[in-house]
Amino acid sequence: MHEEAQFSSAEEQLVYLQALIEAEDHSGLYHALADKESADLARWLESFPANQRHQIWLAVPDSQLGEVLAEVAEDIRTEYMTDMSVADVTEIVKGLDAQEVAEVLDVVEDHLKTEVYESLDEIIRSQVEVLQAYDEDTVGRYMDPETVNVKQGVSLEAVQRFVRIHKLLDDESQEIMVTDKDKHLLGTITLIDLVKQNQDALVDEFMYKAFTLNDNMKVSEAASVLRARELYFAPVTNVEGVLVGQLNIADIIEITQDDSDMTLKHMSGVSDEEELFSPILQSAKSRGIWLGINLATAFLAAAVIGQFEAVLEQVVALAVLMPVVASMGGIAGSQTLTVVIRGMALGQIAGNNRVWLFNKELWVGLTNGVIWALVVGLISHLWFGDPKISLVISIAILVNMTLANLAGIAIPLMLKKLKIDPALSGAVILTTVTDVAGFLSFLGLATLIILH
Amino acid sequence: MHEEAQFSSAEEQLVYLQALIEAEDHSGLYHALADKESADLARWLESFPANQRHQIWLAVPDSQLGEVLAEVAEDIRTEYMTDMSVADVTEIVKGLDAQEVAEVLDVVEDHLKTEVYESLDEIIRSQVEVLQAYDEDTVGRYMDPETVNVKQGVSLEAVQRFVRIHKLLDDESQEIMVTDKDKHLLGTITLIDLVKQNQDALVDEFMYKAFTLNDNMKVSEAASVLRARELYFAPVTNVEGVLVGQLNIADIIEITQDDSDMTLKHMSGVSDEEELFSPILQSAKSRGIWLGINLATAFLAAAVIGQFEAVLEQVVALAVLMPVVASMGGIAGSQTLTVVIRGMALGQIAGNNRVWLFNKELWVGLTNGVIWALVVGLISHLWFGDPKISLVISIAILVNMTLANLAGIAIPLMLKKLKIDPALSGAVILTTVTDVAGFLSFLGLATLIILH
Repeated sequence: MHEEAQFSSAEEQLVYLQALIEAEDHSGLYHALADKESADLARWLESFPANQRHQIWLAVPDSQLGEVLAEVAEDIRTEYMTDMSVADVTEIVKGLDAQEVAEVLDVVEDHLKTEVYESLDEIIRSQVEVLQAYDEDTVGRYMDPETVNVKQGVSLEAVQRFVRIHKLLDDESQEIMVTDKDKHLLGTITLIDLVKQNQDALVDEFMYKAFTLNDNMKVSEAASVLRARELYFAPVTNVEGVLVGQLNIADIIEITQDDSDMTLKHMSGVSDEEELFSPILQSAKSRGIWLGINLATAFLAAAVIGQFEAVLEQVVALAVLMPVVASMGGIAGSQTLTVVIRGMALGQIAGNNRVWLFNKELWVGLTNGVIWALVVGLISHLWFGDPKISLVISIAILVNMTLANLAGIAIPLMLKKLKIDPALSGAVILTTVTDVAGFLSFLGLATLIILH
Repeated sequence: MHEEAQFSSAEEQLVYLQALIEAEDHSGLYHALADKESADLARWLESFPANQRHQIWLAVPDSQLGEVLAEVAEDIRTEYMTDMSVADVTEIVKGLDAQEVAEVLDVVEDHLKTEVYESLDEIIRSQVEVLQAYDEDTVGRYMDPETVNVKQGVSLEAVQRFVRIHKLLDDESQEIMVTDKDKHLLGTITLIDLVKQNQDALVDEFMYKAFTLNDNMKVSEAASVLRARELYFAPVTNVEGVLVGQLNIADIIEITQDDSDMTLKHMSGVSDEEELFSPILQSAKSRGIWLGINLATAFLAAAVIGQFEAVLEQVVALAVLMPVVASMGGIAGSQTLTVVIRGMALGQIAGNNRVWLFNKELWVGLTNGVIWALVVGLISHLWFGDPKISLVISIAILVNMTLANLAGIAIPLMLKKLKIDPALSGAVILTTVTDVAGFLSFLGLATLIILH
């Protein structure tokens, strides 16, 4: 107990493993990985580049290979499973639950899958088939198809005996389901009540209508609902109210985390698959797409500047100040974009509050626009001493910052209407808008006011 | 049950509430909010601007005011609690558990606090005092101080009877703690085993050494450890191994979510406090700080450009292409920064893997740098037909993108050493580096190659 309490940090554990790998101390590694949780082993595999990862992989105890593969990031799972024989995969899926089997089999080839299916325990196989029949991002795909079901009219004591005789609860069981003869869900009873309440009472008395998820609901929506309600688990029913499984919070935590990760990655132009230890070429390739898109928009901005060569030739100070206008618009817009995308994820943007939000962003944009227009105008005056330049940049800052705030809300709303993930392309489109508008307003005004 | 299963989306519920507020239909609102979870009520309060929020607040059932206040975002809690009398607060904290009381009392004034303390049930009061003695970001502050404890050597049946007689388990109980006479934690037993196993067996047989958290550990670190291990809960002990409470996953989900939110906000220059429905002036003010910092760095970049007025006056095409160099560096750098900050949050960066990561980023930067240098050089040649300009921009792109990738890992590592949150200032520093390096390399090379 005390050893566990003296928790050594994730970083310290990593450094220890690194030393073993460097020394190629295989037996040391073998000991370091013995008696560890599969989740930890998976995390360590993810914390090494491919060439060192293999030493860790070889030291994973055979009995945990399956659980570790089910747990680890998809690219690593694929890497290790691609060359496996039917016999290897069959060995690995032994003892896994249906969710884990489905996860593991997702990356193997179809002909192999059929053979492995046949080796599975009949109950697990039918559960795996249930899971795989659902679309990838639905609750049905992520749920645990195994539940403990009892009928109405039995006593708590009888339920306890039933559970004990059939050894029914597994590690993830949270509540007992009460169903009718056609498996329609009538209610659930918590383990807490099962233990705490008078044992002669009937389940009817303590069952309650738990918050229930539909099997075809999007899993990210389910995750945010459960999170908001602080629920540990929810029964899952199909459209006819028939119980098909349960969704546990442990599955959802991963999804929640994934969702926030995605938003962060998408907004910075990093693809879903890239991890810290992805190989060089894979990283270069996955980032290349975003660099290409960015290049196109950068040249669009350059083309706008190109229209104003005449004024730039005469007043070189404009070239010096030009990036300031674009940059202030860019930051103002991305502040709004971030707040709006978060609000969308929480389901807070709907109906007529859009009008209020546009109005808010307009006024925030104008307020900050006026303030920073004055500051920038003053600095420019001190620098170049030309009132026309100061006037031009002040107006351009005000226009671009106000427009940036409005674009920061308009762009994600439009993308959502078009069913495009606003985090994915919102930042790129926004930067294009603020760059183009910044250069256009600044150099356009300069042409009007200074050149004529 | 079926009603619950026909889940109406968060957006639909909001639109319904908006209609009631617009019609000032107070009794409609009152009905809409009756029999709802406090977590939902809190979420709705957060989904309206201040002037409309008040109508929702008035319709919250009196019995749920305390739970809703404990649940809602801190600025809203402060807003409603600032003017409350001792009597109001005393009424509100009735029936709350220690964690909720601590949360609510955090925002009231000290003299009020003492009076409210005296009104509390003695057990709750001592628990609140335990919680408030911990630092704000520690496990001790977030834990549930109430646990169910039994001694070694008793049978499962005896534990069940003990729980039943004293009505000991609450909604959040996960496991039963086994302690010695000095409350040192010896192990825990799950409710699942308590129900499932032979009732004559002793707790000793089924207790296990659960993963235990230290009360002074940082709560964000605890959250990431529990998440990685997919644990629903963990006992919390102090440095002497004495059981002081338990940490439940529901508390941690919130923290996890908060952490990802923070990273996203910080990287976009949005302050922690800003929410979608923050008032205009508050939003303008909180964003203003970041706009100011950005302005300083933008003028730094402008100052760099200002050093090269001579070459810009002669070759106006440089002014046109200049933003392309800065923009490509900016994207390349922020891709690296995002991957590195995520890896840090997962505890994946430690020891000698930093060398590997620098090496990786160098090669990713060089690879993408060469490719995009050629592309940009070609486009520039087609546009301006000047081989010198194409050469200059190609070299500048290669230099800036490679440097950007290295800065993307060096900056967060340095900030972490300085104990500064890398998400908070990483993006601003990075953009400064890529802008300055971009303009410097591009215009500097142009001066050398074209002007001389």
